[in-house]
Amino acid sequence: MSEQVGFLTMGAARAGGDAPEIGIGMLGYAFMGKAHTNAYKKIPYMLWPPPARPRLVAVCGRNEAGVAEAARRYGYERHYTDWRELLRDDRVQVFDNGGPNNVHAEPCIAAAEAGKHIICEKPLARTAAEAKEMLQAVQRSGVKHVCAFNYRFVPAVRQARLLLEQGVLGRIFHFRARYLQEWGNSPDVAQWRYHAETAGSGALGDLGAHIIDLGRFLVGEPRSVSALTATFIKERQDPGGGTGMKAVDVDDAFEAVVEFENGAVGTLEASRFAPGRKNANTFEINGERGTIAFNLERLNELEVYLEGTSPKEAQGFRDVLVSESFHPFWEHWWPQGHIIGWEHTFVHELGHLLDAIVNNKDVAPYGATFEDGYKNAVICDAIIQSAREGRRVEIAY
Amino acid sequence: MSEQVGFLTMGAARAGGDAPEIGIGMLGYAFMGKAHTNAYKKIPYMLWPPPARPRLVAVCGRNEAGVAEAARRYGYERHYTDWRELLRDDRVQVFDNGGPNNVHAEPCIAAAEAGKHIICEKPLARTAAEAKEMLQAVQRSGVKHVCAFNYRFVPAVRQARLLLEQGVLGRIFHFRARYLQEWGNSPDVAQWRYHAETAGSGALGDLGAHIIDLGRFLVGEPRSVSALTATFIKERQDPGGGTGMKAVDVDDAFEAVVEFENGAVGTLEASRFAPGRKNANTFEINGERGTIAFNLERLNELEVYLEGTSPKEAQGFRDVLVSESFHPFWEHWWPQGHIIGWEHTFVHELGHLLDAIVNNKDVAPYGATFEDGYKNAVICDAIIQSAREGRRVEIAY
Amino acid sequence: MSEQVGFLTMGAARAGGDAPEIGIGMLGYAFMGKAHTNAYKKIPYMLWPPPARPRLVAVCGRNEAGVAEAARRYGYERHYTDWRELLRDDRVQVFDNGGPNNVHAEPCIAAAEAGKHIICEKPLARTAAEAKEMLQAVQRSGVKHVCAFNYRFVPAVRQARLLLEQGVLGRIFHFRARYLQEWGNSPDVAQWRYHAETAGSGALGDLGAHIIDLGRFLVGEPRSVSALTATFIKERQDPGGGTGMKAVDVDDAFEAVVEFENGAVGTLEASRFAPGRKNANTFEINGERGTIAFNLERLNELEVYLEGTSPKEAQGFRDVLVSESFHPFWEHWWPQGHIIGWEHTFVHELGHLLDAIVNNKDVAPYGATFEDGYKNAVICDAIIQSAREGRRVEIAY
Amino acid sequence: MSEQVGFLTMGAARAGGDAPEIGIGMLGYAFMGKAHTNAYKKIPYMLWPPPARPRLVAVCGRNEAGVAEAARRYGYERHYTDWRELLRDDRVQVFDNGGPNNVHAEPCIAAAEAGKHIICEKPLARTAAEAKEMLQAVQRSGVKHVCAFNYRFVPAVRQARLLLEQGVLGRIFHFRARYLQEWGNSPDVAQWRYHAETAGSGALGDLGAHIIDLGRFLVGEPRSVSALTATFIKERQDPGGGTGMKAVDVDDAFEAVVEFENGAVGTLEASRFAPGRKNANTFEINGERGTIAFNLERLNELEVYLEGTSPKEAQGFRDVLVSESFHPFWEHWWPQGHIIGWEHTFVHELGHLLDAIVNNKDVAPYGATFEDGYKNAVICDAIIQSAREGRRVEIAY
Repeated sequence: MSEQVGFLTMGAARAGGDAPEIGIGMLGYAFMGKAHTNAYKKIPYMLWPPPARPRLVAVCGRNEAGVAEAARRYGYERHYTDWRELLRDDRVQVFDNGGPNNVHAEPCIAAAEAGKHIICEKPLARTAAEAKEMLQAVQRSGVKHVCAFNYRFVPAVRQARLLLEQGVLGRIFHFRARYLQEWGNSPDVAQWRYHAETAGSGALGDLGAHIIDLGRFLVGEPRSVSALTATFIKERQDPGGGTGMKAVDVDDAFEAVVEFENGAVGTLEASRFAPGRKNANTFEINGERGTIAFNLERLNELEVYLEGTSPKEAQGFRDVLVSESFHPFWEHWWPQGHIIGWEHTFVHELGHLLDAIVNNKDVAPYGATFEDGYKNAVICDAIIQSAREGRRVEIAY
Repeated sequence: MSEQVGFLTMGAARAGGDAPEIGIGMLGYAFMGKAHTNAYKKIPYMLWPPPARPRLVAVCGRNEAGVAEAARRYGYERHYTDWRELLRDDRVQVFDNGGPNNVHAEPCIAAAEAGKHIICEKPLARTAAEAKEMLQAVQRSGVKHVCAFNYRFVPAVRQARLLLEQGVLGRIFHFRARYLQEWGNSPDVAQWRYHAETAGSGALGDLGAHIIDLGRFLVGEPRSVSALTATFIKERQDPGGGTGMKAVDVDDAFEAVVEFENGAVGTLEASRFAPGRKNANTFEINGERGTIAFNLERLNELEVYLEGTSPKEAQGFRDVLVSESFHPFWEHWWPQGHIIGWEHTFVHELGHLLDAIVNNKDVAPYGATFEDGYKNAVICDAIIQSAREGRRVEIAY
Repeated sequence: MSEQVGFLTMGAARAGGDAPEIGIGMLGYAFMGKAHTNAYKKIPYMLWPPPARPRLVAVCGRNEAGVAEAARRYGYERHYTDWRELLRDDRVQVFDNGGPNNVHAEPCIAAAEAGKHIICEKPLARTAAEAKEMLQAVQRSGVKHVCAFNYRFVPAVRQARLLLEQGVLGRIFHFRARYLQEWGNSPDVAQWRYHAETAGSGALGDLGAHIIDLGRFLVGEPRSVSALTATFIKERQDPGGGTGMKAVDVDDAFEAVVEFENGAVGTLEASRFAPGRKNANTFEINGERGTIAFNLERLNELEVYLEGTSPKEAQGFRDVLVSESFHPFWEHWWPQGHIIGWEHTFVHELGHLLDAIVNNKDVAPYGATFEDGYKNAVICDAIIQSAREGRRVEIAY
Repeated sequence: MSEQVGFLTMGAARAGGDAPEIGIGMLGYAFMGKAHTNAYKKIPYMLWPPPARPRLVAVCGRNEAGVAEAARRYGYERHYTDWRELLRDDRVQVFDNGGPNNVHAEPCIAAAEAGKHIICEKPLARTAAEAKEMLQAVQRSGVKHVCAFNYRFVPAVRQARLLLEQGVLGRIFHFRARYLQEWGNSPDVAQWRYHAETAGSGALGDLGAHIIDLGRFLVGEPRSVSALTATFIKERQDPGGGTGMKAVDVDDAFEAVVEFENGAVGTLEASRFAPGRKNANTFEINGERGTIAFNLERLNELEVYLEGTSPKEAQGFRDVLVSESFHPFWEHWWPQGHIIGWEHTFVHELGHLLDAIVNNKDVAPYGATFEDGYKNAVICDAIIQSAREGRRVEIAY
C-alpha cells in the first residue's frame, strides 16, 4: 500500500502528465475485460487532466492462449492464468474483477487482504451472504471498493440524480423500471449465466441488479418486494463442455412490486425474453412536481416533465439531449449533440475510482460500493424468496 | 322484447336507410353520457350501412336542470330524474348506464328484468359480489349485455388481438401494462371517485380495470396476482357537498405482479399521480416471435417487432399507423393517415352492440360482456386482497 | 340574404337550443362531403352552445344514384345533380363546395352572386387568375367566404399560431414544411387529380397548398420561391372513362426554396411518392428563442423548444399533448389526453364559419378566406413558373 | 515512401500484434485533433486484428504552449508549430489535416508532394478551384487520400448504403437532408468560421458539405441546384484578436432544391440557427419500394419502411437499432443495443484509411476521397452561385 499512500497525499492539482501511475490487474478479458480496458486506455487523455494514469500491469484468465492474445491486444505487460498469481504481483494496485459471478467472492476477498483497491462487476456475489463476506473484507482492509453499477455513470442518469437531489420532482410517488433484452429467447443459447452455481440468479442478478441499483440511487431504500420469477426454457446445453443438456435453475425473468421507505411504490422487472428490446434498461420516476424517464437504448436522452412551467400551453415531456458542456461528464467529451455511447460509462466509472484512490475521496454516493453491492444482493435474495413463498418480503440489510 | 325479436330476424343485408330504429335510454349525461351519445349520433351515417338507427328516447340524471339541458343539447326526446322511470319507458330498448359505480348494479339488474339490452360503464360494479348479481340478472333475462371496456375497440388494439389470434407472436412470455394519469396529484381535486362507497376502488377500478381487461383480451386469464396499493393523499374535500374533509378510502395507485394461466408473467399498474402522463394506457406483449406495444396517447399507432423478417439488417420496431382501409374499423373512416380519436372507440363499441342486438350475434369475444365485467371485478378484488394480506392471491371466478 | 341579416343581429349570447338554423347546400358527397357533413352534424351538440344549427338542406352531385344515397345516408332533405339548382334553392344559405378543382370557380361565383355564404375546398382554383375572379365575386357580394385550409383548425396548429403571436419564438429564421403521402407511387392509381384541366396542379395544389397556407398563417408572406417539379409516372389510365392512357400533366412532387418578407428562409415540399408517409404534413419553425414543430400524423402533439428556461439542465424539445381544457378548441372535447382526430378540424372550421355568419365576425385571421385562397394560388403559380424557367420568382399578389 | 511499399505487400492476414506501424502527423489539436487522435489510439485494440498500429509521431499547431500540452496529453512523440517541419519529419507517413479551412490546400499539396498519405477535414477547401489543385496533387503523387466525411462511417449510414446497393428501395424519388445546429444563434459567438477568407463558406461548407456528401454517397450525382443563402447576424467580433467588429461574409444558413442525375429531387438545408437542434444531421430517401431515414442525434438508429412486407397489417416505419454483430462495423464493438457514439465514426474512417494504405485498397467508394471533396466543393460553389444569381445552376465537375 505504500505507493497508494503517496498518491493519496498528492492532492488533485496537477498537470495531466504528472498524474501518478496506478497498476491495474484485470481478471477476465472478454466482454467486461474489453469494456474496462478500453476505459483505462482512454482515461489518461480524455479525463484531462487525469486523476491517474492506469498502467496495464497484467490480465488474467483461465485460457492461456486467450489471455495471451488479450494481453497482446490491449497492451497488458503480462498475463496470468491464476488470479492468485495476479494478486501476488506487487505492481497491481487495483484489482478489476470482470469474471463470472462465481469468481467474485474469493478473489475479491483475497485482493482486499492483499491491500488492492477493487472494482468488481455486478452482481457483487451470487447471494447476499457471499456479498456480505466481501463487504466485510474490504471494510477490514480499508481499500477503495466499487461494485460496477456503471449505469450510475451515464450522464443522463447522473443528471437525473442531481435533479432529484435538488428536489425538482418533490415527493416521489413511483419508480418503475424494467431491463429487457431478447437474447435468451432461443434454446440454442447456453452459458454460465443459466446456472445458479455460476451465476447465482438469472435475469435478476444480470439485469435486475442494475435497475435495483438505480432505484436505490435515485429513489431510496426499498422496504419490501412482492415477486414472481419465471423460467421459460427449462434446460439448455451444458456450458461445462459436455454434450448433454443441463437444467436451467435460474430465472429467465422476474417481476416485482416494490415499496420504498419514503412511501413510493412501483414495479421492477427484468427479462431476456423480450424480442426487439436489445438493451432496454428503462425507468420512470413520478413525483409531485414532475416526471423523469430514461431508456438506455437512447442513453444520451433524458425525458423530463415539469409541472407549473411557463407558458402552460407549452408544457410537455422534454426530450433532453444530455450533451451540453454543463451536463455531467460532458466537459470531457464533444460539442453538444455529438453523442457518446455505452462504453463511456466505464470511462466515468473507472475515472471516479482512480480519483477516489489518488485523492482519497469517497466512492459513495455517486459510485456504487461493495456496500451497495451487498444491499443489492439482499434485495435480489428477497425477490427470490418472495417468488418462492408467494408473499411480500421485507428488506432487512 | 317483441320489437327486438323483430330486429333479430331481419338479418344483416339491408340498406342503411332501412335499418331498424332502436330506442336508447341513457343514465348520466356528463363525461360518458357525452361520449356515448356522440357515438349513437354518428353510427347512422358513419357505420354505413348501419346495423340500426339509435333513437335517443330519453336521458336520465338527478339534476333536473342539468338533465333537461343535456336532453336539449343532444336531442333526447325527453328526460327523467329517476332511472326507474327511464326503465318504465317502453320505447327504451337499450339501457346505457354511464352513471357512477354505485348506480351500476341496481339499475342494470332492473333493466335486465325489464328486458332491456344493457351497456354499463366499467368497472361493472364496486365488488365482484355485486358484479356477480348483475351477471346473473342478464343471464336470466337473455338480453345483450356489454361492459364498456371501450379500448377493445381501438383499431390498433383490435389489430393486436387479430395478430395474436393468428399466432404471429407465438408463445407469450410477458404482458406489462400501466395506465397512468396525473389529475389525482392535487389535494384540491375531490369527487365520488375517492370513496369506496361510491367508487368501490380508486385508480384500480377506474384505470386498472381497463388494463386488466386488455390483459384478458390479449393474453388470457390470469392465474394469480401479488399487489400493493397506495393512497398518497389521505383526505380530500367531502364530495357530498359538505364543507369538511373526508378520508380517502380507495387507492391512488396500485402495483401488481401477474401470472397468466398460459405461463406468461408481467406487471399491472395504475396511478393518478404520474405528472405528464395525461392518458397513458400502455401495454407491451413479448412473445417468442415478436413484440407488440401500444400507447393510448397515440392510439392510431401500434408498435410491432417481428423476428426473422427479411432483410435481417432492417429488422426493428415498426411504428404501424393503423389507418389503412384493411385495418379494423377503418372501412368506415378516412384515407390512411387521417387519424381518428378517442371518441371513435365508442362508435365502434356501440355499433358492435347494436349489431349484436339486431342480428342476434354474440357480443363476445370482441366485445366485453358482463361476464368480462364480473371476472374483471374478481381480479380487482384479488389485487386489493393481495395488497392487504401481503401475499399472492389466486384468481378464482 | 334577409334571413342571414336576422342572424347577424342576434348576437352571441343565446342558449344552444335557440341557435338559429342555417341552411347548408353541399356540392360533392365523397371524401370532403363526408368530412364536412360529419362536422355539420356534430356542431349543434359539441360546440355547445352552438353558433348555429346547420340544416342539411340539399346535397348535389352528378351521379343521381350516388347523390341520392348520400342524401339518405347523411340526412340531407333533398338532392340535386346540377349545382345551379342547388343554388336556386332559397333554403340554402351556405354553399359548401367540396367538388373537384375544376368546379370551384363557376359555382362559387354563382353562389356569391346568389348571396350565399361560401366555403370552398382548397386549392381555391386551378390558377391564380381563376382564384382572383372568385375573390372578386365574394368581395362584390359581401358574403362570408372560407377557403378550407382546415389545418389552421388543428388545436396544435392554432396553439402554434398563438405562441408566435405572443412572440415566444422572437424573430423567425426558418420555416420548413413538407407534406408527404405515398398513394401516387403506383401506376394503377388514376383520377382527376393527375390532370391539369381538372386539378390545376398535382401534389402542389393538393398537398403543397396546405403547407403554403401554414407558412403564411404562421410566418408571414413569402417574398420569393425557387422551385422544381417532378412527374415520376408519365401517364396513367384516363379517368374520363376511356380505356386508354392519358399523359399526366401535373407534378407528382414539387420542391421549393422560399424566403419570407420578414427575412426567414426555408423549404417547401410535397410529394405523393413517399412510401410510409401516410399523411405527413410536417413543419418546423426556428426562431431566435426557440423552435416549434408539428406532424399531422400525430396531430394532437406540438413539439416546442424554448431557450433560456430553468433548469437549463432540463431543457429539451417538449412533446406537448395539446389536449388541455385551456388549449384551443378543447373546451368542447374530452379530458386531457383523450385525443381527437383529423375530422375534428372540420368541426372547428365550419363552426368558425357559422359563428362568423351569425355574429357577423371576420373569418380572418384565424380562418382562411378567399383572399388567402387567391394568394395561395399566386404562390402555387410562382412555384410552377420558377420550376419551368429555372429561376427565382418574386411573389406579387 | 519505401516503408509504405513494404506495408502494401504484406497483405491482410496477420495477427494484430504484427500489424505494421504507421507514423501519424497531425495538424491541429482541438476539436478534430482530439477526435482523430482518439481514433488512432483505439484502432490497435478495437479493430482487432488492426490493419496497422498508428504511431503518434507529431502534432502541429501555431500555439507553442497549446500544442506542447496536446502532445503530452495524447502521447505524440513531439510537436511542431510549423506544418512544414511536420512534413519534413520522415517518420510521418500519414498527414492528418484537422486545421481550419484556409490551411487545407497548401499543407495538403505539400504533403502529397512529400509522399505522405493524407486525410483532410471537410470541406476539402474554401472553393472548388482550391479543391481541384489539391485533388491534382494527390493524383500526381499517388498517395492515399481521404476527405473526412466521417458520417459515411456511421454504421446506420453504411447500412443505408448497403440496402440501397441491394436495390431494396428500387428507383429513388426523393432525397431530403438538413443539418441543423443552434450555436450560431448568438451575436456573442465569434470565430474563423464566420469569415470567407478562413472558412470559404458558412453553414454551407461546415454542415451542408456533410449532407451533400451523403446525397452523393446514397443517391448519386446531382444535376442542378436552386438555392438561397441567409446571414442573420451581420457582424461579429473580429476573431483575429482585435476588439472591433467584423462583417460576417458567409452564410448562416442555406436552402437548396436539388435534382439528381437519376431523376430524384429533393431539398438540402443547413443552419446554425435552429434552437434545440443540437447536431441534427437528418436525411430521408423515398424510393419506389420504401423509405430510409436517419438522424445523427440518434445515430445508432435507422428508420426503414418497406412496401409489400407481410403481414401488411403490421407494416410501418421500423426503428432499426443498428447494433447487431452483422451490422456494419459492429463486429468490433459490443453486444446489441450497447450503443456507440459520434466519436466511433472516426475509428471506422481512420481504420479504413489505414487498411487502404497497408493493403493497397481503394478508399472509394465507401470512403470519401479528395475527388469527393472536390465534387462537393463544386456543388457548394454552385449553391452560392445559384443563391447570388437567383437561378438554377447545373453541376459540372
